Amino acid sequence: MKIENIDVASYPGSEKVYIDGEIHPIKVGMRRVNLTPTVKVVDGEKQVRENAPVYVYDTSGCYTDPAVKTDINAGAPRIREEWTLRRDDLEQLPHITSEYGRMREADKSLDSIRFAHRHRPLRAKVGCEITQMALAKKGIITPEMEYVAIRENQNCRALGIDSHITPEFVRQEVAAGRAVIPANPNHPEAEPMIIGRNFLVKLNTNIGNSALSSGIEEEVSKAVWSCYWGGDTLMDLSTGDNIHETREWIVRNCPVPVGTVPVYQALEKVNGKVEDLTWEIYRDTLIEQAEQGVDYFTIHAGALKAHATMVKERLTGIVSRGGSIMTSWAVMHDEENFLYTHFEEICEILAAYDVAVSLGDGLRPGSIHDANDASQFLELDVLGELTEIAWRHNVQVLIEGPGHVPMHKIRENMTRQLDKCHEAPFYTLGPLTTDIAPGYDHITSAIGAAQIAWMGTAMICYVTPKEHLSLPNLEDVRNGVITYKIAAHAADLAKGHPGAQVRDDALSRARFEFRWKDQFNLSLDPARARQYYVESHEQSDDRFCTMCGPNFCAMRISSQMVDDCAK
Amino acid sequence: MKIENIDVASYPGSEKVYIDGEIHPIKVGMRRVNLTPTVKVVDGEKQVRENAPVYVYDTSGCYTDPAVKTDINAGAPRIREEWTLRRDDLEQLPHITSEYGRMREADKSLDSIRFAHRHRPLRAKVGCEITQMALAKKGIITPEMEYVAIRENQNCRALGIDSHITPEFVRQEVAAGRAVIPANPNHPEAEPMIIGRNFLVKLNTNIGNSALSSGIEEEVSKAVWSCYWGGDTLMDLSTGDNIHETREWIVRNCPVPVGTVPVYQALEKVNGKVEDLTWEIYRDTLIEQAEQGVDYFTIHAGALKAHATMVKERLTGIVSRGGSIMTSWAVMHDEENFLYTHFEEICEILAAYDVAVSLGDGLRPGSIHDANDASQFLELDVLGELTEIAWRHNVQVLIEGPGHVPMHKIRENMTRQLDKCHEAPFYTLGPLTTDIAPGYDHITSAIGAAQIAWMGTAMICYVTPKEHLSLPNLEDVRNGVITYKIAAHAADLAKGHPGAQVRDDALSRARFEFRWKDQFNLSLDPARARQYYVESHEQSDDRFCTMCGPNFCAMRISSQMVDDCAK
Repeated sequence: MKIENIDVASYPGSEKVYIDGEIHPIKVGMRRVNLTPTVKVVDGEKQVRENAPVYVYDTSGCYTDPAVKTDINAGAPRIREEWTLRRDDLEQLPHITSEYGRMREADKSLDSIRFAHRHRPLRAKVGCEITQMALAKKGIITPEMEYVAIRENQNCRALGIDSHITPEFVRQEVAAGRAVIPANPNHPEAEPMIIGRNFLVKLNTNIGNSALSSGIEEEVSKAVWSCYWGGDTLMDLSTGDNIHETREWIVRNCPVPVGTVPVYQALEKVNGKVEDLTWEIYRDTLIEQAEQGVDYFTIHAGALKAHATMVKERLTGIVSRGGSIMTSWAVMHDEENFLYTHFEEICEILAAYDVAVSLGDGLRPGSIHDANDASQFLELDVLGELTEIAWRHNVQVLIEGPGHVPMHKIRENMTRQLDKCHEAPFYTLGPLTTDIAPGYDHITSAIGAAQIAWMGTAMICYVTPKEHLSLPNLEDVRNGVITYKIAAHAADLAKGHPGAQVRDDALSRARFEFRWKDQFNLSLDPARARQYYVESHEQSDDRFCTMCGPNFCAMRISSQMVDDCAK
Repeated sequence: MKIENIDVASYPGSEKVYIDGEIHPIKVGMRRVNLTPTVKVVDGEKQVRENAPVYVYDTSGCYTDPAVKTDINAGAPRIREEWTLRRDDLEQLPHITSEYGRMREADKSLDSIRFAHRHRPLRAKVGCEITQMALAKKGIITPEMEYVAIRENQNCRALGIDSHITPEFVRQEVAAGRAVIPANPNHPEAEPMIIGRNFLVKLNTNIGNSALSSGIEEEVSKAVWSCYWGGDTLMDLSTGDNIHETREWIVRNCPVPVGTVPVYQALEKVNGKVEDLTWEIYRDTLIEQAEQGVDYFTIHAGALKAHATMVKERLTGIVSRGGSIMTSWAVMHDEENFLYTHFEEICEILAAYDVAVSLGDGLRPGSIHDANDASQFLELDVLGELTEIAWRHNVQVLIEGPGHVPMHKIRENMTRQLDKCHEAPFYTLGPLTTDIAPGYDHITSAIGAAQIAWMGTAMICYVTPKEHLSLPNLEDVRNGVITYKIAAHAADLAKGHPGAQVRDDALSRARFEFRWKDQFNLSLDPARARQYYVESHEQSDDRFCTMCGPNFCAMRISSQMVDDCAK
């Protein structure tokens, strides 16, 4: 199998730049948007003022660096490989560990769809604690920690803006469990990033095929496309055929951390029969995926047997796939959820590969009616217990959150989460603030996401316009990501993140000075802004737009007035 | 000129119904969404449960009533004509009053674009106080007040939900100035609606051509389209040619109140030269438009000469067209803004036609940087003074608000507005919560609009994806309206408006029971929801969707589990 190169244009007016580390030999990629000068004619004299470039957080990795020749069939550059190979707490295994993985490897019929370049997996040496959290607790500033410290401060260095974010601060936040750096050594293609409420708000995108749709090439395209537009992490939620091979292609080409929900694949292994799921199959799946390089697992260990009867009160029962599977399993077997009973063992596996756990909210409300109910909050209490267990193993923890929540019930979600889950980073889906707009749920949810992110949610999971209706295509991914970039950035501004407003100010200045190209290039979606403008501007000149026409341009009238007053 | 009938399909699965008044002989239009029954097979036996219909607030007027034959060339039914003709405080004038209006009427060259059916204007008899506010203060419950009381309680009657909204409550709110019923007797085609923070949140849409674009037919289409999707009021912001005739077409066909910014037309009358504007031209424009039936005027009487120097501190100066025009005029003439100095006279005119005043925020911030600055808040203080003057004339008042405001600065806008403007209804544009997303400003602003509406803003002005770039087309109007319906409804839920959640609950129940058609029909945009579903469902059946495929449908697994537990 050979995938055509995925074509994402470089960002217009922008350059990829790299900032050197001071502690470690690292190069932190950023995008620099170069601006045109402001030209003004005052009393017949031309005045030219240069405009400083604006640095932008960049999730697109190699795909927008013209100096890197990208090849989907070879995988993305393994930028962290050197760092991990230097470590003496990791060992390279002679072959992959999971039974299922070996079976797939031996299956010749899969050769045609297999990613060609395999690497031997890395795992903690016996007795070594290798996670970012373990190292942070020991006082070690890892290359990953320095990387994210530089990355979070895009414009601060150039503009001399004070920032609380230093490598040491990053270390403290990771040690305290308030922030997570998902960084499986088996996914060296990923650039380090940090999820925590004292950092920039992050967004996750979900891709993945279902039994009914979408092949490997399409999913890899979505992954690259998601990173291009600004997705900070990527979850592969595939549930159809060839999950193992699809994931390999995605991980090898993905410059951001990848998450999965291992129970989806475990269920496929038993042909979709919930009652046939076993701990052994699940356990093997964890190892299989950890060795492929998955950076975090959603694990629905808080969905308990007791929930099965509680949800009868609900309007929409259980809407989490993982939650419904595990609760049903518990009822069918009249036993507690095996993810809960085997949680210590799960943590041991995760600790060996530094896979973070994202504790799934299997009981998240699926409707306004069910928001903040007893089932939801009982589960949150359980997630709090599990957090403490995971931290004892130095496993990094995220807590997943709702769902459908009306605005007046959002704050309670955040307050309780911080309290019950000991400030582990919150990672929410939306929340959707009304149920009545299928086809527009990127918007119903961005309204809630912006608010909860401002209150302290560290990562928001995008929702696309197709939510509730079908799987997203490339254009839906773009719309979902941009919508969530808006929500995240609105929250960064409201939280006063150092330097966050630099981009707003630069764009607004460009707008006021009719530097249209700069306005487009500084925007979240330069191509779309430009397209809307160009479509309607055949007749107009650059000093106004069709919105107001020549006589009614407030910015022109207002500039002129200020100039006149100054004379 | 003959305009082709504008084709908006009736809403699927819905009927137009009319509720009779108890005080007045009025018929209040609503949309009833009829649902299919829930069918379940339990132990081989078919169980059928009927689902109650859901009533939906309906702004589409005659256009979705199959019993009414609509004809754009004849105008919409004049439903309030009988009510106004019964009144003894109004007189029918022999001819139109404004000089400009008479000149246009006499101009044969305009016959080809003129709306054919003209009506003689209504005006207050000398000595009569005719506004809804004047009548409310006298203790009179008008037909308009009873109409909105019924209209606001869509589902309460049928479902026995308690509501604070009675005709008497409406009267009290209008008398206190906390709510506005824009109801110029010269626009009898408009269904009464109310704008106030103790009622459903309303949304306004802006249409109108500029010198560079768009003809009469296109603008009328946008007006009907806006009402079809849910716009509660409509502002005609035309600035190009034939504003007078365009407005006549729009008003005659518009089932919702129409607002304008009269200074736009006044400026066209002096060929766009700000310095040539005069009070006399403006005054004639007010009368011209009031007699056409405009229900509210945006008047930038709070943008003072002092602001011209204050805005030098700003990043983006003045971004309100009206604000920039009036401030520039004041600077050019070294005089105070004539809208401020003539405000008493303005109120006398408005009172004679019951045109509400929407006090424009000429100094609204046009960027995050300028939010909540001294210029903005100085103007708000002035708007508070003007409110008291208007109320002395029993002129109904709305206060316009920003603009670009980051989330953490939104609340101050609401708190100050209530305080300084004596609880007159707030009517905001967004606010946009970041500047960096041109092409997506319906979303940046819906995030702010939902929040400020929850805090108490009575009406939110939509923003389309084309904001800052060009004028909206039909599809942009649809996207803008639906986005703002979402924001408004999210706020209604958060405020606990009586019965607001009925629609969410019904839709979610339909979703959980796989009644796809009911889910679509209950949604804000049934056509789009259906389209997204259908495009991807060739291979699937009705009991799951492509999102999760057959094995992973949480709602199916969860329903099955609850059924099993019940056995």
